[in-house]
Amino acid sequence: MTAPAVSSTVDDNTGLGRIRLDRPEQRNPLSSATMREVTAALRALGADERVRVVVIGAAGPVFSAGHDLREMIGRTLEDEREIFDACVEMMEAVQQIPQPVIASVQGAAVAAGCQLVAACDLAVAASTAVFGTPGVRIGLFCSTPMVAVSRAVGRKRALQMLLTGETIDAATAADWGLVNLVVPPDELEDRTRALAARIVEASPLTLRIGKQAFYRQVDLPQGLAYREMAETMATNAVTCDAQEGMTAFVEKRPPTWQGR
Amino acid sequence: MTAPAVSSTVDDNTGLGRIRLDRPEQRNPLSSATMREVTAALRALGADERVRVVVIGAAGPVFSAGHDLREMIGRTLEDEREIFDACVEMMEAVQQIPQPVIASVQGAAVAAGCQLVAACDLAVAASTAVFGTPGVRIGLFCSTPMVAVSRAVGRKRALQMLLTGETIDAATAADWGLVNLVVPPDELEDRTRALAARIVEASPLTLRIGKQAFYRQVDLPQGLAYREMAETMATNAVTCDAQEGMTAFVEKRPPTWQGR
Amino acid sequence: MTAPAVSSTVDDNTGLGRIRLDRPEQRNPLSSATMREVTAALRALGADERVRVVVIGAAGPVFSAGHDLREMIGRTLEDEREIFDACVEMMEAVQQIPQPVIASVQGAAVAAGCQLVAACDLAVAASTAVFGTPGVRIGLFCSTPMVAVSRAVGRKRALQMLLTGETIDAATAADWGLVNLVVPPDELEDRTRALAARIVEASPLTLRIGKQAFYRQVDLPQGLAYREMAETMATNAVTCDAQEGMTAFVEKRPPTWQGR
Repeated sequence: MTAPAVSSTVDDNTGLGRIRLDRPEQRNPLSSATMREVTAALRALGADERVRVVVIGAAGPVFSAGHDLREMIGRTLEDEREIFDACVEMMEAVQQIPQPVIASVQGAAVAAGCQLVAACDLAVAASTAVFGTPGVRIGLFCSTPMVAVSRAVGRKRALQMLLTGETIDAATAADWGLVNLVVPPDELEDRTRALAARIVEASPLTLRIGKQAFYRQVDLPQGLAYREMAETMATNAVTCDAQEGMTAFVEKRPPTWQGR
Repeated sequence: MTAPAVSSTVDDNTGLGRIRLDRPEQRNPLSSATMREVTAALRALGADERVRVVVIGAAGPVFSAGHDLREMIGRTLEDEREIFDACVEMMEAVQQIPQPVIASVQGAAVAAGCQLVAACDLAVAASTAVFGTPGVRIGLFCSTPMVAVSRAVGRKRALQMLLTGETIDAATAADWGLVNLVVPPDELEDRTRALAARIVEASPLTLRIGKQAFYRQVDLPQGLAYREMAETMATNAVTCDAQEGMTAFVEKRPPTWQGR
Repeated sequence: MTAPAVSSTVDDNTGLGRIRLDRPEQRNPLSSATMREVTAALRALGADERVRVVVIGAAGPVFSAGHDLREMIGRTLEDEREIFDACVEMMEAVQQIPQPVIASVQGAAVAAGCQLVAACDLAVAASTAVFGTPGVRIGLFCSTPMVAVSRAVGRKRALQMLLTGETIDAATAADWGLVNLVVPPDELEDRTRALAARIVEASPLTLRIGKQAFYRQVDLPQGLAYREMAETMATNAVTCDAQEGMTAFVEKRPPTWQGR
């Protein structure tokens, strides 16, 4: 019997669901088993009505060193496919669950670890965090990480990370749009909670509509995106929470949310 | 009889068409009626041969607080659809008219007001301007604004604005690519005019070809974009103004434009 | 007999292939003939197994002033089409060859010259370099350059360059993601070589897989990109060089590459 590689908790008071990568001594590798655990935890939190925001963090000095190389040596193509399918499934689950997901990054986030940060809706980094896609150095180009990373930082910067394998520091990651905020290491927990608390004030129904809509529109040609979002916003406007929110704003009182 | 919510003027000397949101005491709300006025004004200026550049500004301390909440409370889905269709129509008109459109932003540009700035070809902001998509705070996620905002500032930054509803200052907006230039408030008018004057020097025909081509290519896969733009540029090259412009450049004299 | 407008060399020791624009006295114009020479040189270097990284540089104070205006005056539409087809072919060749291509920019890179920098996988700029798309000033909007430039720097900044025709300096180009690195002019050669040398350490097979995959995924909707990249990465993982690279990493020894 081994301990699970991932812990998942819910705080009823704050509405925070937390997923923690919990193999610090191995630098939190994203093995197939671990990725399936994370996906399952994301789906469970996603379906939990108490959970309003999800935070993904990690134990120890490293956020995640990426895939577990030991399980990728000497395998068949079919084995490798299973690993990368599990990886894509996890990354997509982050964006599919209705609640916003915040990465809280205390140390190195590398390869699939960097991708996980890029895939989260928001990211807070300690100034000690670094980010990289060094697969090219070990013969295995970071091709799935680059899907998320190139969409976050743009072409030239993504290619720089991918072709050199060199890491960037937290300030550079913020400058390039890979993370939202850089904070002193001893403030990481508080600042992540403050960001989450700000979001928890919003209607869960509205956040659900908005997050889903964001990823639906972001890859569409603009004209099509506008058509879909006009319909989304009209439908949102007639929900109980939008009617309550607009009325409360006009009446200068705090709103009371009912939707989920 | 109420005064129009929008004023539209043409300066024959400078070639500037100006649209001004003119309900400062209500913080320039973008009601359906106002949005239709803006759309009509854009189309009229777009069809006016005297107009070489359009500037969208606003009276009072606020650029625009976004949609008029009062007209969105207690309405049917069909009513709401009309509002957001009018909104999309206005945003698309900005990009459809042949002349470049510059937003000149003196104060808070919020929700659809922020979207309008994002939709303009260029934007100059006073250092007093702030930008935000706070719909999430009142139960109505800024889903149509995010089409323009996420295409201007990228994913993580757009999600930060959308999920927290917090505003960013003008310097941050420039850093993220939402506006082109931040200037002292008392220089906003002059700097906007100087930018417009620089563009007015160009051939109207060339600007028309170029602006239309920009939005046609920007959402295409690169290979397709190259094919279309090679044809656009070849066709542009045989126009009178390109032939005149290239000849004048080679002969080191100023060009005389004839195309429209 | 005229000297070729482009020189192409291979350094067996370093694995560097170099293409140099070699008409400094005419500011390295990209005439049809020159663009075909560059395309041919790129393909030759691309097929040369000794070449691990390609550097595109230029002789003299100017990187490239763009197309040769003299060959575009008084031509038929069919002639102009040939010019822009040759241009697109060159830009696509940069991204199609298997090795990474670095632009090493010592001076002004303008119009198609700016596009060439934007099309390269990576770019190092001397602090003396400037970048611009001034076609609008001579009646010929930079419509093919904008395909590459708008994908590098985003919408508002691309439109600013395109509509005003004004140049940006090297620091701004780095800030906007058009180049990766700005260095003192007398360090340009060394810093370009150092960047190339870093990349040459990687497996040529892995770089080939990765570069091809990058451009295949970057324009796809995210879900489709993930599907393709999962398969690419699984296939990469069973190659000799990935197996060697992962094993060497686990065994803490340097890898020995065999793939091409």
